[in-house]
Amino acid sequence: MRLGFIPNAFAILFDKIKDNIMIKITSKDNSLVKHITKLNKSAKYRRECEEFAAEGVRICIDALNSGAKISSLIVCEDILDKYSDVIERIKAVADNSYVFSKTLFREISETKSPQGIVCVIKPLDKHSLFDKMECNGKFIALDNIQDPSNMGTILRTAEAVGIDGVILSSDCCDIYSPKVVRGSMGAVFRLPYIIKDSISDFILEHKNITSYASVVDADAEKITHIGFECPCVVVIGNEGNGLKQSTIDVCNKKITIPMNGRAESLNASVAAAIIIWEMVK
Amino acid sequence: MRLGFIPNAFAILFDKIKDNIMIKITSKDNSLVKHITKLNKSAKYRRECEEFAAEGVRICIDALNSGAKISSLIVCEDILDKYSDVIERIKAVADNSYVFSKTLFREISETKSPQGIVCVIKPLDKHSLFDKMECNGKFIALDNIQDPSNMGTILRTAEAVGIDGVILSSDCCDIYSPKVVRGSMGAVFRLPYIIKDSISDFILEHKNITSYASVVDADAEKITHIGFECPCVVVIGNEGNGLKQSTIDVCNKKITIPMNGRAESLNASVAAAIIIWEMVK
Repeated sequence: MRLGFIPNAFAILFDKIKDNIMIKITSKDNSLVKHITKLNKSAKYRRECEEFAAEGVRICIDALNSGAKISSLIVCEDILDKYSDVIERIKAVADNSYVFSKTLFREISETKSPQGIVCVIKPLDKHSLFDKMECNGKFIALDNIQDPSNMGTILRTAEAVGIDGVILSSDCCDIYSPKVVRGSMGAVFRLPYIIKDSISDFILEHKNITSYASVVDADAEKITHIGFECPCVVVIGNEGNGLKQSTIDVCNKKITIPMNGRAESLNASVAAAIIIWEMVK
Repeated sequence: MRLGFIPNAFAILFDKIKDNIMIKITSKDNSLVKHITKLNKSAKYRRECEEFAAEGVRICIDALNSGAKISSLIVCEDILDKYSDVIERIKAVADNSYVFSKTLFREISETKSPQGIVCVIKPLDKHSLFDKMECNGKFIALDNIQDPSNMGTILRTAEAVGIDGVILSSDCCDIYSPKVVRGSMGAVFRLPYIIKDSISDFILEHKNITSYASVVDADAEKITHIGFECPCVVVIGNEGNGLKQSTIDVCNKKITIPMNGRAESLNASVAAAIIIWEMVK
């Protein structure tokens, strides 16, 4: 018992030191405030900085648990007690930690009722993870998906049902936009993904992976008639215009959702969910 | 040819008369402005008036084509030419038609970029339609669904894949709230539905219909192992809390979505879509 006491004493001392280095910020002109506002707004800026902001208790815990590098933790002064456990855990790994006044926190928040916690995160490089799975996985490829809410929901569904990885075309909306990060419920931290200039490039470079172009076309093969054996990739197209012809042309097969009702009326993330479900069930 | 001329002349004259009876409104204090604003905001008021407002070109055409009774057509002055065909068709059946100034139209609009057309609609009574199908249909029952966007998407999906009808518990959000009407892409006009005080009541009154309670429970039967023969009903519960125990208790079977990934993470409308898909595919 006596032995246990010394590390505890050190821990308490260490906590005090760390408490001291939670820097309090109150000015709107602070460069961190401007940095986060810009991270929230601009995909270009996120790419330049190789950072993004994630807001909310659950999403920040997801970031922590995924091993992502947290460069800044920002906490609103009024939740220091409420979420003290979470704050302590994140503070222990974050490069820097800051306390914002309530008014200032509202400046960087993207939500109507802020939970009072934001992390600035450097995304993990998942390329090597992705490369390892290529011979034996089930993948989805998103070709020019534009709506961040759709992308968030698709990533969340893909992770939930057990898709191994995602390929994004570079003309998709940014995977680290606040809406995608929130809508994915943290799947952006866990799901292996790569970004390619075009999905056709990926397909042509990976001829061992059977590729399926999902289309709205009664003559295409029904998703219910396909085995989806590994390795395979299903390509999902833009919400309004569907898949590019150049992508369809390089795929091994065209597939479609057979319908009794008004098939054309499924929304993009529901259509994707049904296809993903058929791939892995 | 000569014979054709006379009706044409009448048609032109009739159009002129109708044009004249498109009443121009410019004052915020007009009772119609207040009526529509209240219809958009209050489910209680919608129930009292037995009316709701639908906004947008496509949704108003859907209302027209479904045969719903349109009590008022409201058009923004700047789209009179752009959508003249649609306006003429709706004006021909609407009890009253109005032209609003641009500023005033913004008062009644629920969207950031208004398309400039709103219909005030009396819903069709679909009870008789529903009763006829009871012996031979596939139904979904929504128990305490709270998010209008979820309900809209679920109704849209149900119609798209060919569900025959929907039972709503009276503690669901209102089916005629603007978000449900928009999110359903007009399915609210076409899909037969009834509202019951509780879903258990419906199940107990319809013992000929096999009832399935959808739950997150590894011991429940997998949706992939069920034939879903007619007549059947699948009950879908609240987004956060799932199904009420009292509803589960009266159902014939508990069913669940089997998952390889993080099952608990599916969003409500995606989980519903997968279940509905398995029912009818």
